[in-house]
Parts: sequence; C-alpha cells; structure tokens
Amino acid sequence: MTSTPPLVPASNVAGFRDCAGAELLAKRAMLDTIRAVYRLFGFEELETPAVEFMDSLLGPPSDEDTKSAKMIFETTRLRGRDAAGTGATARTALRFDLTVPLARYYSANRETLPNPYKRYQLGEVWRGEKPQAGRYCEFKQFDLDTVGCAGMEADAEVIAAMYTVMRALGVERFLIRVNNRKILNGLAGLAGFDPSLSAAVMTVMDKVDALGLDGVQAALTRRAEPPILSEEDKVGMEPADLQAYYLPPDEGWGAGISAEAAATIRSFMEISGSPEEILAQVLALCDSEGIMAEGANELLEVVALLDAAGLPRESWAIDLSVARGLGYYTGPVFETILLDLPNFGSVYSGGRYDDLVTRFLPYGVPAVGASIGVDRLFAALKELDQLELTTSASDVLVTVMDRAHMADYMAMATELREAGINTELYMGSENRLGGQIGFAEHRGIPLVLICGGREFEAGNVQLKNLRNPDRGSNQVTVPRSGLIQAAREELATHYPEPEEDPA
Amino acid sequence: MTSTPPLVPASNVAGFRDCAGAELLAKRAMLDTIRAVYRLFGFEELETPAVEFMDSLLGPPSDEDTKSAKMIFETTRLRGRDAAGTGATARTALRFDLTVPLARYYSANRETLPNPYKRYQLGEVWRGEKPQAGRYCEFKQFDLDTVGCAGMEADAEVIAAMYTVMRALGVERFLIRVNNRKILNGLAGLAGFDPSLSAAVMTVMDKVDALGLDGVQAALTRRAEPPILSEEDKVGMEPADLQAYYLPPDEGWGAGISAEAAATIRSFMEISGSPEEILAQVLALCDSEGIMAEGANELLEVVALLDAAGLPRESWAIDLSVARGLGYYTGPVFETILLDLPNFGSVYSGGRYDDLVTRFLPYGVPAVGASIGVDRLFAALKELDQLELTTSASDVLVTVMDRAHMADYMAMATELREAGINTELYMGSENRLGGQIGFAEHRGIPLVLICGGREFEAGNVQLKNLRNPDRGSNQVTVPRSGLIQAAREELATHYPEPEEDPA
Repeated sequence: MTSTPPLVPASNVAGFRDCAGAELLAKRAMLDTIRAVYRLFGFEELETPAVEFMDSLLGPPSDEDTKSAKMIFETTRLRGRDAAGTGATARTALRFDLTVPLARYYSANRETLPNPYKRYQLGEVWRGEKPQAGRYCEFKQFDLDTVGCAGMEADAEVIAAMYTVMRALGVERFLIRVNNRKILNGLAGLAGFDPSLSAAVMTVMDKVDALGLDGVQAALTRRAEPPILSEEDKVGMEPADLQAYYLPPDEGWGAGISAEAAATIRSFMEISGSPEEILAQVLALCDSEGIMAEGANELLEVVALLDAAGLPRESWAIDLSVARGLGYYTGPVFETILLDLPNFGSVYSGGRYDDLVTRFLPYGVPAVGASIGVDRLFAALKELDQLELTTSASDVLVTVMDRAHMADYMAMATELREAGINTELYMGSENRLGGQIGFAEHRGIPLVLICGGREFEAGNVQLKNLRNPDRGSNQVTVPRSGLIQAAREELATHYPEPEEDPA
Repeated sequence: MTSTPPLVPASNVAGFRDCAGAELLAKRAMLDTIRAVYRLFGFEELETPAVEFMDSLLGPPSDEDTKSAKMIFETTRLRGRDAAGTGATARTALRFDLTVPLARYYSANRETLPNPYKRYQLGEVWRGEKPQAGRYCEFKQFDLDTVGCAGMEADAEVIAAMYTVMRALGVERFLIRVNNRKILNGLAGLAGFDPSLSAAVMTVMDKVDALGLDGVQAALTRRAEPPILSEEDKVGMEPADLQAYYLPPDEGWGAGISAEAAATIRSFMEISGSPEEILAQVLALCDSEGIMAEGANELLEVVALLDAAGLPRESWAIDLSVARGLGYYTGPVFETILLDLPNFGSVYSGGRYDDLVTRFLPYGVPAVGASIGVDRLFAALKELDQLELTTSASDVLVTVMDRAHMADYMAMATELREAGINTELYMGSENRLGGQIGFAEHRGIPLVLICGGREFEAGNVQLKNLRNPDRGSNQVTVPRSGLIQAAREELATHYPEPEEDPA
C-alpha cells in the first residue's frame, strides 16, 4: 500500500479557461449561424491540426527576427520519440492563426483542390499572451478565405459574407470599413517620404480613433524609435500600455517623416464623401497613376459589387485610415466595428494577401479572406444584449418520486426523447418534489413531469409548466397515454419571460 | 533587399493530418447527429482548454511511473514568459483525453454545477503515438458523462444514449457488450489467485476474441513478466506487436496463476444464456456474496432499466470477458462492436469510474460515461458504406459568361442566398461554359445557372440540372424574375444517383 499522494490543484493554466452551460449553449448557436452563412456562400470546411512544424508557422529558419517576435507554444513529446527515425526531430508548435495552415494545406494540395479554393475553418489558435483580463492564450477563430482568385469579386464576396454573418447574428448597427493597402503604399510617393517608413506611418495612421487628426499629424513627425512594435508584440499589451509605448508623456515618438509629408497625409486622411467621391479624390491626388490609382480602381470595382450584392450603403464605408497592422496584406483590407461599442475595436477583419504561400511555393497565389475573433464577438454580443441565454437545452425533467419506479420513469423519458423532446431524468439526491423542481428551475428546464403513487395507480402523469407565471394553475393531470401530446402543448404555450434572476 | 529565403516544405507533422471536402462534410453531419442525441438525453456541453498542467493530467508529481508511461506532448512558450511572475513555471501539456479535464473542471466548480452534472464534450486529444497507418497523434473524442450519481440509472442512461447514437447514425448491426469490474474483481477470491494479479488476468481475458478460450486458459498460467503493458503503452502498438508481446512464439507469458485458477476462470468465461441467466449463474458462483454479487446485482438493475428504455435485447449483451483495459473503471463497463466489422474493435466504450476526482479532491465522486473515438467510428461507417458522401454543400453555381456582367451575377447569387439556397459564384479562370460546368460536376454542385448575352437581352436565365441524367433535356430557360421558384423546383426533383465516380 502506498501513502496517499498529495492533491493536485484543480486549476486552469493561466491564460486558459473553460466554457460551459448557458454561455457555451449561446456560443454554439452563434457558431452554427456563422457556419450556415459560410455554406450559403459556397465555402467548404477545412480542418488542420493544432500542431505544425515551427518552420511552417514562422517562415524559413533564417528569419530569426520573426521567430523571436512570435509568442508561440512549442510542443515536445514527453518521450521524445523520433518521428522520422533519423535521430533528429524538427521543432513543432501550436498554430497561432488559421491562415498559415491554410497556406500550407493549399500549397500541398493545390493540384486536386477546386480552383479557386473557398474554405471556412473554425478552430482554436494559441498565443503566449501575457495573461490578464480579457487576454487569453487559447481562442477560437472562424475564418473564410478564397484562394486562387485575383478578381475583386472575391474581395466583395468576403465583405458580403461578413455583412450577412453580422445580420444573421442579429447585429444591426455595425460598419465594415474598407481600404486598400495599395492606396496606403502610394503615400510615400505622394507625400515624399522614404518607403521604408511606410510601416511606421500606417501604424500612426491606424491610431486616428485615439489621437485625432491633430495627434496623428504631430506623431508622424516624431522620431521613429524605439523600433515599431510588430503585431505580435502588440497582441499582449493593454491599449494604455500601447499608447504609452508610442507616446511617452514628455517626448512622444512616431514615424519620423517631415512636417510637409505629415501635412500631406493629414489632408489625405481628411478626404470624405460618398465611396465614389472619396475614390475620385484619391485618383485625382495621384493623377490616376501608379500603385495608389490601382488601389482606388480596385475599390471602385468592390463598391459596384457590394451594391449588386445588396449591402446597404450605411453598412460599409471607404475609410482611408484603415491599415490592419503590418501583416501580410497586399490589397483591399476591411474591418468591422460595432457602432454601439465604438471602443471595442474590430470584431471581424481581413483583406487580400497575395504572397502568403510564397513560403511554401516558388510563386504567389492570390488570396483574400476574413477572420472572426469568436470570443471577442461573443463578448460584444453579450454586452449588446444580443444573446438568448437559456441555461439548458432540455425541455422536460422527469422527476423521481419513488426510486422503485425507476424503470417507469426511464420509460417515460425514453418516450419523450423518441418524440424529439430533450428530456432529463432526475438523478440527484433530492427526494422531495420541491428540491427536484428547484433543480429544474436552476437549470432552466421549463416542464416538469411528476408521477407518484396516486398517479401510477390512476394511470396518470402530472405536468408542471414552470414558464407559466400563474403558480396556482401551472399543473395539469393527463392520462399516461396522452403524455407526448400534453407535453408538446405545454412546450408550445408562450408566456412572458420571467424577470431575470439577480444571481 | 534580402536574398530569397529557402522554401519551407508544405508538410504535416508525422502523425497529424488535415480533413477537408466531402470527408469533413460527412464527419460534420455525423458530429451534429451525435450532439443532437446527447442533448436529447439532457446533457449539456463543456469545453476545456487543450493545455492543462502536467500534474492535472498525470496525477501527483510523485507518481513518476505513470508519468513516464504516458505519451504526452509538453507545451512550452517559445519566449518562456513566466505566467505567475515568480520565476518558476509549472509544466504544461496537451490533454490526452477529455475525462481528466472533466474531473478537473468538476472539482473546481462542483459548488455551482447542477448535481448530478451531465455533460458532453467534443474535442481533440493528443498522444505521442508512433506514427503509422491508422494511428494519429491528434484525434477527436466525443464524450458524455454523468458526475455525481451513484445509481445504476446513470449507467443505463449512458448505454441508452450510446444505443440511440448508433441508431441515429444509421448503424443497425452493432452490439453493446456490458460487464462489471466488480464481478471481475471478485475473480481472485473465486479462483484463488493473488488479487495483485487481477490486472494481468483481465488483460489476458480481454484477448479472448484473438486467443479463444483454450488460448486464454493456457496464457493465464504462463509467467506474468515482462511487466504488463499499461493502456498508454499499448496505444501505439499494432495488434500483431501486441499479441507478440504477450505471447512470444516459443515461451508465451501471461498472468502467472495456477492451473486450477485458470480452469475456474475458463468455466466462468463459459457462462452463457440470457442476461438474467448469466447473472444468476454469477450469483450462484459467489453464493450471492461479496464484490462479485454486488457487481451482478448492479447489472440486474441495469438490465431492467435497459428494457424500460426500450433497447431491443439483440442490441446489447452481458459479456463477462469485457474488462476495458487497466484504466480507472470501478463498476459497469461497456463497449460497442460492429457486427459487420468484427475485427474493428470497440468504437464506443466507457464505464463507471468513481475515483477519478480523488486526484483533485479529498473524496471520491461517482461518475459514469462513454467516449466515441470519432475518427475510428467515422472510418467504420465509411467502410460500412453508411455515409452519404456529397462533395459540396452548395446547391447552385452561378457561372460567369461575361465578366462585364459580374455585378449582375453577384446580384443573382445574392438573391439565391437570400432564399436560403447555398450558392457559389464562379471565380475560376475557365472562360468557357464547359469548363465551368466541369467545375460544378467536380464539386458535386447539382444546379448551374447560365446567363450570357442572349439571356441578358431577353431578361432570362438558364438553369442546367446536372442531376438530371437526360443530358438532352436538363436545361430550362426561365424569366429572371422566376429564378428562385425554378431553382427550388429543380433542386426538389429527385433523380436516381449517378454511378459512383471510379476516381
């Protein structure tokens, strides 16, 4: 006999969490809705493993800078079995997004995949975030991407799908902001700054919501060091930290361009009007030439297709300040903000990235897509009171008044289930009816079936409808043979929702 | 300018794989069916993280033997940030099943959870398998468990849910084999061998399908070394390796019990008859006393409840040879075999385990559950031809005959989607109609919408129904305003399924 081992704390690893009960029920409904929209648009599902080669995730081994910047979870077999049997084991890690695995999958299977390949994917991704409120190391993304189509119809379709998802989720007041990286890439030529400063300039422009136009103009001229944070660096930072990092109270710093260039960018950012007016002004600025004109003309195509797809103009806008970070985007970029939660940031964003597969293939492949931060969007819907939170998917609780009749209760539960009614058989330790009804109330189960000695003798069952606010008349007695019909009728009766439980 | 970096191979890590297209579509339908049954039985969903503390997964740190036996993937942050800020980081790893996380979750939340807590969970688990055909390092499990009910109604309900799942998946010919570890634990007393050899005895008995009764009897008396493999050891082994490990050709080895004890076990295993007859014989063997009688009486309760739950007797059996490995089971155990794939092994198994939370809590909590090996069951259904494999969830392909009309095509696609019809807009590089129809055929999209110059002029669209085997009359022209109705009619028309594509 060994001595009793010490207890293990029943804790989650910091940055990881469980999801259960009413919250998960609502989240699952949300995911089902998104999936239905993606299918409606003809996308097909893909699943890729959690574990990928480190080189697939981070790019070629030579690229050490990228490597050190990512907050990756490396995975190692405890037993260290050598997969290939060569003695050497290539390093592996958990994926940090779903886009790189898509590029890897597409590159490996392009010969047999439909062309273009339109896929959606729901899955967890992992990032070594600094654990703090609202930041997690594991979270769900729900992506859709079209790989292999260079035409703007692909970009417009992704935006149309985003719009349809938001509406299907019951959100009315949102705005999809659309821009084109090609327009932003033309700014260096337009304003006369070194193209190597483009990333710093876009990063400052991206802050316009926080800094205002004056603040952006001032920041653009400040010195551009310490080095600009990468998207991955930023991921673990609080908004306040991030702002402080860019703008220390005494001597702020920014993009390091000239005052003239900053003024040009400011007037560029002041361009306003209808989508067509904005794009016409952009075309005028660049004399309809170069990369900037290319970007504006692409967006004009997108505009026409969004109209054709029936998106109301108030649901989207051309916004020249949108840059979507320093990532891999090469064309149109888009993001979705909630008009009633303006500080929430984008819940659904994406863009065109034509170079991602070049890590795996000797040529580029056009691609465009968008990604929902599922947990962020779910938190937003919750805050918007847009979620139907029921605590249980069960319709009926079969109470147990006499354990000697367990087989009868089991038969009733079976009959209800065979009629498609989600049914629980009470298995707790409460013997009293009141305690079992309390269990149903706590779980949000609307209908309670009661059958004791008297009912068994008479061949009856009782149904108590907990949704009926009239506690005096919420119980009916029906013959055992009429159980299903009576249960269906009770479940179909609508009563006003009870006041929310203060707990 | 940097030089072009080397290409990264677009490979999966050995033991990991992607799932896509028709296969994933069918798997998703299977998972939706299972989920619906679990909800029908009143179970609620739980999600837990992929990453847990190593001690949670493997038990107290002192238990080094268990640790070394598991094939676990350790997870390490590449940047090594210290979560708690103490300088020390507790080791973390990927979960290898969903039961230990349930025990951790239940232990942490038992005060607020319903009692009993009935949950289902679908998720990936990871094991450092030796990569080889049919063995993967990442696979899905779909579990249901009732925690907090000691009564046999919980066990019977799990079996009833298993039965309902199998039927809902369209499987007719399966057998759920039921036994009780308490009966097996009584064998030492009955046959007169050292209880410390019980594990070895059960392992040999579990092999009756391969060895036959004579083989089992012989193996029982062979010496019981080298040490018996744990479940985790066995996980990576081919059946042939496993058999060789237990029975080397020259001098096989087994459980090391006496010939008399082995004879007793043989006659125990020969017990047959109806469930009640088998259990009556077991009770007679042990004079209705001790742990064996307790186990038999529990199964008598289960038998009555399975009858009440409407399970036909041919769908389940009491089978005294079922042990379900050396794991944590303490009461009834069950497994599901497919009668048309007898060598496939169990696809759905479980049992009662009343001690699992003792790792986290100073007391035990009764629990019973079952787990589907999703990928195994899916492979079996495929082999049984029980899957409806369609290559696409899309109903209509809108072809593009003239890119100048892209906005019109987009509007048609939108109209179809708004009518709830899954629709793809063609975005590939084929300009010819034949090529685009080929795309639809390859993708399994039944209906093709065609609109060229003539149709635009006349205000018409054409619909070509690829399911219609009469290639001469499978195309109709309808006015643009009648598109939705015509598409619905075409999609509702049933034609015989075409011959399967030999590719």
